[in-house]
Amino acid sequence: MANDKKLVESITSMDEDFAQWYTDVCVKAELMSYSSVKGCMIFKPHGYAIWENIQREMDARFKATGVENVYMPMFIPESLLQKEKDHVEGFAPEVAWVTHGGLEPLQERLVVRPTSETLFCDFYKDEVHSYRDLPKVYNQWCSVVRWEKETRPFLRSREFLWQEGHTAHATAQEAEERTVQMLNLYADFCAEVLAIPVVKGRKTDKEKFAGAEATYTIESLMKDGKALQSGTSHNFGDGFAKAFGIQYTDKDNKLSYVHQTSWGTTTRLIGAVIMVHGDESGLVLPPKIAPVQVMVIPIQQKKEGVLDTANNIFEDLKACGLRTRLDDSDKSPGWKFSEAEMRGVAVRVEIGPKDMEAGQCVLVRRDTREKIVCPISEVASKAQELMDAMQHDMLERATEYLNNHITDAHDYDEFKEAVATKPGFIRGMWCEDEACEIKIKEDTTATSRCMPFEQESISDVCVCCGKPAKKLVYWGKAY
Amino acid sequence: MANDKKLVESITSMDEDFAQWYTDVCVKAELMSYSSVKGCMIFKPHGYAIWENIQREMDARFKATGVENVYMPMFIPESLLQKEKDHVEGFAPEVAWVTHGGLEPLQERLVVRPTSETLFCDFYKDEVHSYRDLPKVYNQWCSVVRWEKETRPFLRSREFLWQEGHTAHATAQEAEERTVQMLNLYADFCAEVLAIPVVKGRKTDKEKFAGAEATYTIESLMKDGKALQSGTSHNFGDGFAKAFGIQYTDKDNKLSYVHQTSWGTTTRLIGAVIMVHGDESGLVLPPKIAPVQVMVIPIQQKKEGVLDTANNIFEDLKACGLRTRLDDSDKSPGWKFSEAEMRGVAVRVEIGPKDMEAGQCVLVRRDTREKIVCPISEVASKAQELMDAMQHDMLERATEYLNNHITDAHDYDEFKEAVATKPGFIRGMWCEDEACEIKIKEDTTATSRCMPFEQESISDVCVCCGKPAKKLVYWGKAY
Repeated sequence: MANDKKLVESITSMDEDFAQWYTDVCVKAELMSYSSVKGCMIFKPHGYAIWENIQREMDARFKATGVENVYMPMFIPESLLQKEKDHVEGFAPEVAWVTHGGLEPLQERLVVRPTSETLFCDFYKDEVHSYRDLPKVYNQWCSVVRWEKETRPFLRSREFLWQEGHTAHATAQEAEERTVQMLNLYADFCAEVLAIPVVKGRKTDKEKFAGAEATYTIESLMKDGKALQSGTSHNFGDGFAKAFGIQYTDKDNKLSYVHQTSWGTTTRLIGAVIMVHGDESGLVLPPKIAPVQVMVIPIQQKKEGVLDTANNIFEDLKACGLRTRLDDSDKSPGWKFSEAEMRGVAVRVEIGPKDMEAGQCVLVRRDTREKIVCPISEVASKAQELMDAMQHDMLERATEYLNNHITDAHDYDEFKEAVATKPGFIRGMWCEDEACEIKIKEDTTATSRCMPFEQESISDVCVCCGKPAKKLVYWGKAY
Repeated sequence: MANDKKLVESITSMDEDFAQWYTDVCVKAELMSYSSVKGCMIFKPHGYAIWENIQREMDARFKATGVENVYMPMFIPESLLQKEKDHVEGFAPEVAWVTHGGLEPLQERLVVRPTSETLFCDFYKDEVHSYRDLPKVYNQWCSVVRWEKETRPFLRSREFLWQEGHTAHATAQEAEERTVQMLNLYADFCAEVLAIPVVKGRKTDKEKFAGAEATYTIESLMKDGKALQSGTSHNFGDGFAKAFGIQYTDKDNKLSYVHQTSWGTTTRLIGAVIMVHGDESGLVLPPKIAPVQVMVIPIQQKKEGVLDTANNIFEDLKACGLRTRLDDSDKSPGWKFSEAEMRGVAVRVEIGPKDMEAGQCVLVRRDTREKIVCPISEVASKAQELMDAMQHDMLERATEYLNNHITDAHDYDEFKEAVATKPGFIRGMWCEDEACEIKIKEDTTATSRCMPFEQESISDVCVCCGKPAKKLVYWGKAY
């Protein structure tokens, strides 16, 4: 058995060094690999399969709300990027520049898209003429590039995969409704598919998107107590429309500017799943996105009938639609168990000669390690039941963790004490002066995560400066 | 009715100017739009939805043969591109160069991937150690960039979408089998999903992929008699493995180089669908990839009960899994018919007051325009039946067209006569001397499309130089 433990021992303990535990899991669970291209990562099959499952589930939810997918060019001419002032200032310092095509220098430099607001605006300018052409509710799945200095797998890399929705509406109200609708869609997706509860709210002006009137965010909480911005939805008002000249004639033949939104989530969601659910043995994946939901592992597989029975169980599970594999390799069962745990297989099924005699097999849940003895004939329905239970319980546990890691601070001493000793979100009132956000960050490294939609007053004064408070804010250290 | 014809009249006749007809259809069927980024196109919802349908069907076929999806970085360091001599010579003249990241010049220039052999090789070099690590059968769906001078929607643009499979095997035989397996998969996909018959064979050395030992191709025939290379599969032997040092220890502990393949298809397949099936009224799409399979169009929709009945029909069709829309806009029925035809809706369902009285509706097939009167209660099963019939008949007609456009040429006079007067493929024997390929291209603009797998002898001498013939070749003008 000593040998079987090697795989688990190959990852650092999360208590000892959470950051190293994270990196170890990314590599040992074979989610990704580093590449020769500095700051860019390789999505290996197991990591990419999680993204495919996320895409399929999220895309279906998009389409149910009337979203249509498109694909825009990956290059943006420099002059187009510069049309909206705040936007170019926000992105120009961190883009990759294409200067040559073939053997010739380009007449105008091109940016590899860091985000595609400018391309969609340029497109809508030609597509939108009348109120009949509205709304436009488009999305694309693609990769984007931002020239980051420090990178970490899934959380921050020079190229990452994402979806970006871009919409144009006749009225300000419709744009605001779509902005909130998509934020809620993201929050529901995180809870129902990723088993991750989130805090929802509005970003402060300091933290909002370059060019937006308002940015809404979902923030999730990792097991080390740090927050992770997990999706954002922006209301642009008519700022981009004015910069790009996107106008339409309404029913009364009057010319108006459109109102726009954009919203995005990225492969960073995979990082969130790892850090919300993972444990000392590796990945724990919610069944809805686990590439392998059930792994059948035969014990003493050379004994007569074991492999045949294991194969029958495998076929039963597959037939009921579960993503199933059979591990009939020549590794030891203990090694196979460790490997399945490391990779976040939701349930493993053990079947050996003794089980066969009793007409049963053993199911082991990845999250609780609970062992369930089950008649072979009922394995498929039992496994299906465990998928539902695991999906449900994982959200429940993560919600309990989140609720237990929110601390209220009423003055600056309490605030600093909380940042230093209590991992998680800190709720504190704010005067709306950016100077306090800056001071808090300098003193504690915590930043304003969001102003929650459900505002309440826990004190009359700003947690930092003591002046009259205007907003309740969730603060925290963040990725 | 004059007004209703406007949409159809807005596209050029294919007999008059096939190239203009093609461009008109791309634009008027709202498949794509030109962008401010020179040489790059925008995939609009209707065009992108076709690609999504192609992806879903093809990806399922890939996975059934053991393919796993991954994602590699979009950038290739210059030094990596240069490792395989033929490969860099083939691609360097047509790549986009990234020279700056953020505000700094890069230490090493990066290429935006034109194809990813070099990245996969660099990855496999670290991943493959033992025969247990083989085979690697990976694929990615992504976009690539080639700095083309002349571009055409879907057929040739500076950025295009594709899939690229890259495999590594223990033996030369296994690599060859995978190369042919994927070519056959592409051919079956074209026939069964796109209703496009192809000619399969091997490329001459002049036409093969930069760095490949052998390139296999599927070639389809457009309605103007020109060939379109529609998918390729390459066997690299151990050439890349030697350049990149990809070695494994076999069961006898001996060190060997792996054998590799790659294979790809692109959004050019959408161009093939347009030019194989389209007609004077616009797009004709095989039901399996049509974004809208059935359009329900109410007649005199303001009369009582018409919209309700149309809506019931719409719900019935949707419930049986058909991609269905209801056009209840305020346009005239004639305009709606034209629009549905232009966009390649497979079947339209007409329902008006008179039909309602008789308890029936009218189904119209897009390909034959045949009208089928059908009881309202049976509309879903009838529509499903028409989908199958259309899918079948479209392949049959395209196959008949292909077979009727293959001409045998026994000497150079016959060959030149055929190129000048007979659109389609020309079969002619070849001496295997590249000089004859060059001369034929100069004299006639026709190129060697492939040496078909099923070789036969139709003459003893090369169709160009008259020296002893070695291979039967399909020649043709090509896109």
